[in-house]
Amino acid sequence: MRVLGIDPGLTRCGFGVVDGDRSRRCVLVDVGVFRTPVDLDTPRRLVQLEREIEAKLREHHPDVVAIEQVFAQHNSPTVMGTAQAAGVAMLVGARHGLPVRLHTPSEVKAAVTGSGRADKKQVGLMVSRILGLAEMPRPADAADAVALAVCHVWRTALESYGLEANGLGGSRLEAATRGAAATTNRWQQAVDAHRTNRRTTGKETPR
Amino acid sequence: MRVLGIDPGLTRCGFGVVDGDRSRRCVLVDVGVFRTPVDLDTPRRLVQLEREIEAKLREHHPDVVAIEQVFAQHNSPTVMGTAQAAGVAMLVGARHGLPVRLHTPSEVKAAVTGSGRADKKQVGLMVSRILGLAEMPRPADAADAVALAVCHVWRTALESYGLEANGLGGSRLEAATRGAAATTNRWQQAVDAHRTNRRTTGKETPR
Repeated sequence: MRVLGIDPGLTRCGFGVVDGDRSRRCVLVDVGVFRTPVDLDTPRRLVQLEREIEAKLREHHPDVVAIEQVFAQHNSPTVMGTAQAAGVAMLVGARHGLPVRLHTPSEVKAAVTGSGRADKKQVGLMVSRILGLAEMPRPADAADAVALAVCHVWRTALESYGLEANGLGGSRLEAATRGAAATTNRWQQAVDAHRTNRRTTGKETPR
Repeated sequence: MRVLGIDPGLTRCGFGVVDGDRSRRCVLVDVGVFRTPVDLDTPRRLVQLEREIEAKLREHHPDVVAIEQVFAQHNSPTVMGTAQAAGVAMLVGARHGLPVRLHTPSEVKAAVTGSGRADKKQVGLMVSRILGLAEMPRPADAADAVALAVCHVWRTALESYGLEANGLGGSRLEAATRGAAATTNRWQQAVDAHRTNRRTTGKETPR
């Protein structure tokens, strides 16, 4: 399964493309940020963002788009812009006929670090460890987008074994997926072979 | 000037197309609501909405898109959906190279009724009176979208005379634009003639 993770934003919109399987193993394919000029009006920033996301979809052909769910704790132009950037990501994904799934920031943190209250640095460090990267993806928006894609792979893996990912903390998540991974077999080997092929062509390091 | 007004929403997204000129006279061209199914997920609802707005743009060729500004007083899925619907409207307008302008609900109410705190019925009644309609556009989302388009015409008229529309209440707005209208001349007659032509082909009553 190839996941395009999107950490929505207008000034910096993080993206991360990750290949993952039911054993929870993940390989980084691409990571970075889309930027739109702060002095451009919002409608034109959304058009630029749409083009960038379109281009990434055509480049990587993901199976699913995972987007960070936006909450409005307080009203601000930034929150609205972020919500609208998320809306454009949803729109583009759905227009391609792809499943689009939202994950909350605490779901992402819990999946990657074991704690829903981890800080950005912890998320970045765990993402690097999980993907075997020499350094953390930067800026934080890029690391967050990768974490989102990894979270999607893991939650989907749990669900494929009939487990409910919601509310699982780090250690229970770990135990559950370790047990699940042990039961994988030939199907897993096929996935591994496929992933190895992809690995030779995909980008392994952040840009 | 032809304005497409959009009162954004996922369940009901009001639209109103109005022809207006510098004398503030307005003619209704089209009005209605776009609806998307509540049981569809947000990404697919946004795709449907995008198609509907695209179709209206191609049908009526507006010069500008006016959208109601969304505020998040409290966090709710509805507010986020509304913000994302507004984002799609902005995106489609900007993709067509059109100016996209936001007006706040109180700016719209003040322009149309003279009070920023008018209720929906007052807005609907004033919109009907301004446009010479036999009955109020329904539902309220449709009337709001028409009010938005009228608001845009009037604010643009004021600005074309170097007046600042912000903060002008009903009577001052009235006086300012009445004075401005008196100064219009041949340019105005040309606009009138153009509008009369359009009137014979445009829809005058709400659907």
